[in-house]
Amino acid sequence: MGNRSDRSTAARYIIGVDLGGTNIVVGAMRADGATRHAMHSVPTQADEGSDAVVARIAAAVERTIAETCAETGATRDDMLGVGIGSPGPLDRETGIVIFTPNLGWRDFPLRDRVSAAVDLPATLDNDANCATLGEWWVGAARGARHVIGLTIGTGIGGGIILGGQLFHGASDAAGELGHTSIDATGRRCGCGNYGCLEAYASGPAIAERAREALAGGETSMLSTMVDGDLTRITAATVYEAEQRGDVVAAHVVRDTAKFLGIGVANFLNIFNPEVVVLAGGVTQAGDALFEPLRAEVRRRAFTPAVEACRIVPGTLGGSAGVIGAIATFAQRHGLA
Amino acid sequence: MGNRSDRSTAARYIIGVDLGGTNIVVGAMRADGATRHAMHSVPTQADEGSDAVVARIAAAVERTIAETCAETGATRDDMLGVGIGSPGPLDRETGIVIFTPNLGWRDFPLRDRVSAAVDLPATLDNDANCATLGEWWVGAARGARHVIGLTIGTGIGGGIILGGQLFHGASDAAGELGHTSIDATGRRCGCGNYGCLEAYASGPAIAERAREALAGGETSMLSTMVDGDLTRITAATVYEAEQRGDVVAAHVVRDTAKFLGIGVANFLNIFNPEVVVLAGGVTQAGDALFEPLRAEVRRRAFTPAVEACRIVPGTLGGSAGVIGAIATFAQRHGLA
Repeated sequence: MGNRSDRSTAARYIIGVDLGGTNIVVGAMRADGATRHAMHSVPTQADEGSDAVVARIAAAVERTIAETCAETGATRDDMLGVGIGSPGPLDRETGIVIFTPNLGWRDFPLRDRVSAAVDLPATLDNDANCATLGEWWVGAARGARHVIGLTIGTGIGGGIILGGQLFHGASDAAGELGHTSIDATGRRCGCGNYGCLEAYASGPAIAERAREALAGGETSMLSTMVDGDLTRITAATVYEAEQRGDVVAAHVVRDTAKFLGIGVANFLNIFNPEVVVLAGGVTQAGDALFEPLRAEVRRRAFTPAVEACRIVPGTLGGSAGVIGAIATFAQRHGLA
Repeated sequence: MGNRSDRSTAARYIIGVDLGGTNIVVGAMRADGATRHAMHSVPTQADEGSDAVVARIAAAVERTIAETCAETGATRDDMLGVGIGSPGPLDRETGIVIFTPNLGWRDFPLRDRVSAAVDLPATLDNDANCATLGEWWVGAARGARHVIGLTIGTGIGGGIILGGQLFHGASDAAGELGHTSIDATGRRCGCGNYGCLEAYASGPAIAERAREALAGGETSMLSTMVDGDLTRITAATVYEAEQRGDVVAAHVVRDTAKFLGIGVANFLNIFNPEVVVLAGGVTQAGDALFEPLRAEVRRRAFTPAVEACRIVPGTLGGSAGVIGAIATFAQRHGLA
């Protein structure tokens, strides 16, 4: 836990790697979670192939180690290992990434390749699991036993923490919370299912719904913000326009809140969690999103589950994944 | 576990009580799950008030004890206690039933009232949790680590077993799997939400959809089976008509399979369980229901989750609840 000042972990460090389709975020933390060091981001450049990506990860890890040692007076012997968060599906036991559309990998032994390159033990877990565990370890869900996490970006990832431990299911495939259908005959999702949360409330889905509203002839500052090129609208554009008072954007944000609220209400009735934490760009939307989202959950979920649960934005921003990757390593080695 | 022949539990017994709105099922099992004794059912008669219901439970427990002793040569000292399954919501720690619409109870200390009446320790858990645990202990989900249970009757209850233990959530409200929305703008559910699984696939919802089909003018043996009184159609009538080749009934069963499949696909993407077990009257429908249900799940859920999971009918029939109530007592006392 973050507050522990156990001598055996306080002076030792874990490096985290959050591998994404666009960027790799790397950083270090003291093994007890108390301090963070040398966080930085490098481009993934997946098109250069897996060897090049591993080399870039290894270089970033070495740089993080060097900077952490310089900052803290630690030595390389104080580095316990590397926690890696990666898009899935993956196999934690073998450390193999089974498939990642964004990187074009199949059955790639990422954990062992990174471990060999930096000569440190490593662990591998799903990126959304990591982000949720990060928020539980030192972020918005700290101290809770049962936590549901949603990471909202290009897709919607999920993480399930029960009794302070990530829940992985029978074959590491649990937690695909963005791929729960809230409308059985609704929008086709990239996964093949219909009406998935991700098809309504991911970043691209939010942008798409804004474009649909504009195509319907509504006037909005969204068009001017992207110089008339509607393909450039992103979820961030929508949030910004909403904050500047745009009616169309406000409508899109309210709908997003409603869709997320329907999904979150399902998770409350299923899990009765203490915290639901939403991370990713969506947290930029603030109360304009969270207030109607909470109202939708109250309308739909059972009262005892509503009363037991806080629904909050993540507090770790883009660092949730790398911090959580560190936390997974720490948990796997009995340190968190 | 069921196979254990530990001397200390083999010769001892646990009594189970499955309290329903219509009937109370009571029975005993050897504490290791190996043998079942003196199962019987008495009417609940909730309209006579809670004192009368407790007295009827106590009488049924005493009769079960007497019969079990006669069958096995055990004495009353070999009776470890009473596991009670009740409609919820409830509080396991205090043993209080918070609210049951069917019985008209609020904040009723069921566990302690039964315990005092029969002078044995008792435990209390949710009825659908119990049914799922029963199927895990000695039924269709035996030996699995992660199990999702759905009990389909007047409502749709749910049970979640993770790592061989029931998951209860922050305030014993977890597992309301029948109240997950699969259609955010769909049928109003009794719980206040829209599009809940229960609103489509519970016994009454199945009967209602059959009546709607008949109201649309379709001809069917369903009308003759109930002498033209469509209010008498139940899910059992529909299953029977389907088995006798009725086209309207077959359509209703296929739709039921589809609705359940959408919900079960969500549970696969969320939990990645080893077994999904469906209990209750729905198991009467057999392959006519389970085959299209599995096909719908394959269409919608992620392949790794589909490959890891069996979707099966319960094997304990109407005894799942009472057997599971016994199992919850056994687990709470470290015996199962």
